[in-house]
Amino acid sequence: MNRFPTLNKIQQAAARIKPHAHRTPVLMCQTINNMLDAELFFKCENFQKVGAFKFRGACNTVLSLRSAQAKNGVATHSSGNHAQALALAAKIRGIPAYIVMPKNAPAVKIAAVEGYGAKITFCEPTLTARETNLTKVVEKTDAEFVHPYNDYRVITGQATAALEIFEKIQSLDIIMTPVGGGGLLSGTALSTAYLSSGTQVIAAEPANADDAYRSFHARKLIPSVNPKTIADGLLTSLGSHTFAVMQKYVHDVITVSETAIIRAMRLIWERMKIIIEPSAAVPLGALLENKLKFRGKRIGIILTGGNVDLEKLPW
Amino acid sequence: MNRFPTLNKIQQAAARIKPHAHRTPVLMCQTINNMLDAELFFKCENFQKVGAFKFRGACNTVLSLRSAQAKNGVATHSSGNHAQALALAAKIRGIPAYIVMPKNAPAVKIAAVEGYGAKITFCEPTLTARETNLTKVVEKTDAEFVHPYNDYRVITGQATAALEIFEKIQSLDIIMTPVGGGGLLSGTALSTAYLSSGTQVIAAEPANADDAYRSFHARKLIPSVNPKTIADGLLTSLGSHTFAVMQKYVHDVITVSETAIIRAMRLIWERMKIIIEPSAAVPLGALLENKLKFRGKRIGIILTGGNVDLEKLPW
Repeated sequence: MNRFPTLNKIQQAAARIKPHAHRTPVLMCQTINNMLDAELFFKCENFQKVGAFKFRGACNTVLSLRSAQAKNGVATHSSGNHAQALALAAKIRGIPAYIVMPKNAPAVKIAAVEGYGAKITFCEPTLTARETNLTKVVEKTDAEFVHPYNDYRVITGQATAALEIFEKIQSLDIIMTPVGGGGLLSGTALSTAYLSSGTQVIAAEPANADDAYRSFHARKLIPSVNPKTIADGLLTSLGSHTFAVMQKYVHDVITVSETAIIRAMRLIWERMKIIIEPSAAVPLGALLENKLKFRGKRIGIILTGGNVDLEKLPW
Repeated sequence: MNRFPTLNKIQQAAARIKPHAHRTPVLMCQTINNMLDAELFFKCENFQKVGAFKFRGACNTVLSLRSAQAKNGVATHSSGNHAQALALAAKIRGIPAYIVMPKNAPAVKIAAVEGYGAKITFCEPTLTARETNLTKVVEKTDAEFVHPYNDYRVITGQATAALEIFEKIQSLDIIMTPVGGGGLLSGTALSTAYLSSGTQVIAAEPANADDAYRSFHARKLIPSVNPKTIADGLLTSLGSHTFAVMQKYVHDVITVSETAIIRAMRLIWERMKIIIEPSAAVPLGALLENKLKFRGKRIGIILTGGNVDLEKLPW
């Protein structure tokens, strides 16, 4: 445990990001509770800055850099929420952000990253091209690389979401997050181990991108090969750090069908009147497909984000 | 003023509905504030029971009936949110609800009203057919007719939304609601006159359904003829009671283009990550079309509802 972020570190992160991040609400929905015969508490990170929990990790990392580390800015490759989160965090600190993005990234995401003043380098839409270009950018600028999830500073920031849940809601039987790279999952697992050790940590993962499920059961990292899911925030595979935390502090991983993800997403839109992205619907999808297992439980769920293309809805 | 609902009546209504209605949150959005150079406070009645403020008025009316009035149930004609609101209020009191609905009403709305246990009578989709059928239903059942807006009991219930705003937000320069039949507008105007008389009450209305605008300026009721707007909750014309309150306590009516309504709706979906129906977007549409007029102001806006067909979005 000594190599993992401590409770003290997580509390420091919470204090560090507090002036900049939203303390998002925890919502409940009687209709969904009735459907599942369970009590659900939704932590609404779709209302977080940049529309996703990713701002917590990026903000914590950027604000915790020493002056010498920060002075040349920060860099990453991302086509999604981490790019916007890092760009905004760098803007807050007043340092440059260099983002490598695939040239086929949606125009709206490019515009958002540019809107925060980041410098974008476009590349071919392959992981190799992204990594090669990032290396070049870092060599040229000497910027600090901030990985989207496999970085303890980022994990510590993501852990603050569960910290806020436990400050508000007691006696949870279960806490659930989706799992992609595992940043939010491992942060949540650490906060839960420190603050509510009787609460089970369960990861929900699209069956079509089930590297965490397979890695968890095989007890070794097995990356995804050509994952394909509507939950486009969960295409990435676990990293070494996130997997290490997961092995120690996560109790189970449940896979979820695409149908259940879409059904859960629509249920939250229609009944809770809030906008979530498909990735955020994965835990509720897991509950819908496993009702008996969760009957009567008090369950915290982190709704991870709300960035969705309103022109391309999955129904 | 003596014929209008008093502050005491509105406070009684608030106490009466409190165990059943949500105390909805007031949200802010930095991006929208920056766009308008104003400070906006959104009262989220899209999170209200049945997904709309209409539950306040229906609930207040049904729960305030004397036993003799209530025993045969309540009745109305509606294809929209008032039907669901009255059905749920009747279910809470344990009395029958009779709803006359046009036979072309959306299946999802019919299902919702049936879900609350109401008895539906289908009719041709004309106002005459609706009124004729309602008269028959009332004659047969002796149920109490609850008008969707032109009823002081309903207006008193709708007034509780603004009451909750003033308990939370002080020193508003302006409070805005959309106007259709005028129930929410007149309730809001009364609460504002009693509790925050320095706040201007401004109604926003689709230019394509501008009976309130024309009536307000002509100082006489001029009903809409074939109104056609995406804001389908605002097709109705003012009633005698709502117009009387409006003439005395509303400061201005602004008309809004269909383009601005759609733009405002999308802005709230994308930036606030909440689902509102087109009618709820009309006040923000008015601000977008009149930026200079509202620069620097503190403005309360009631987001009236979130019931929208996810298969038929206007973009």
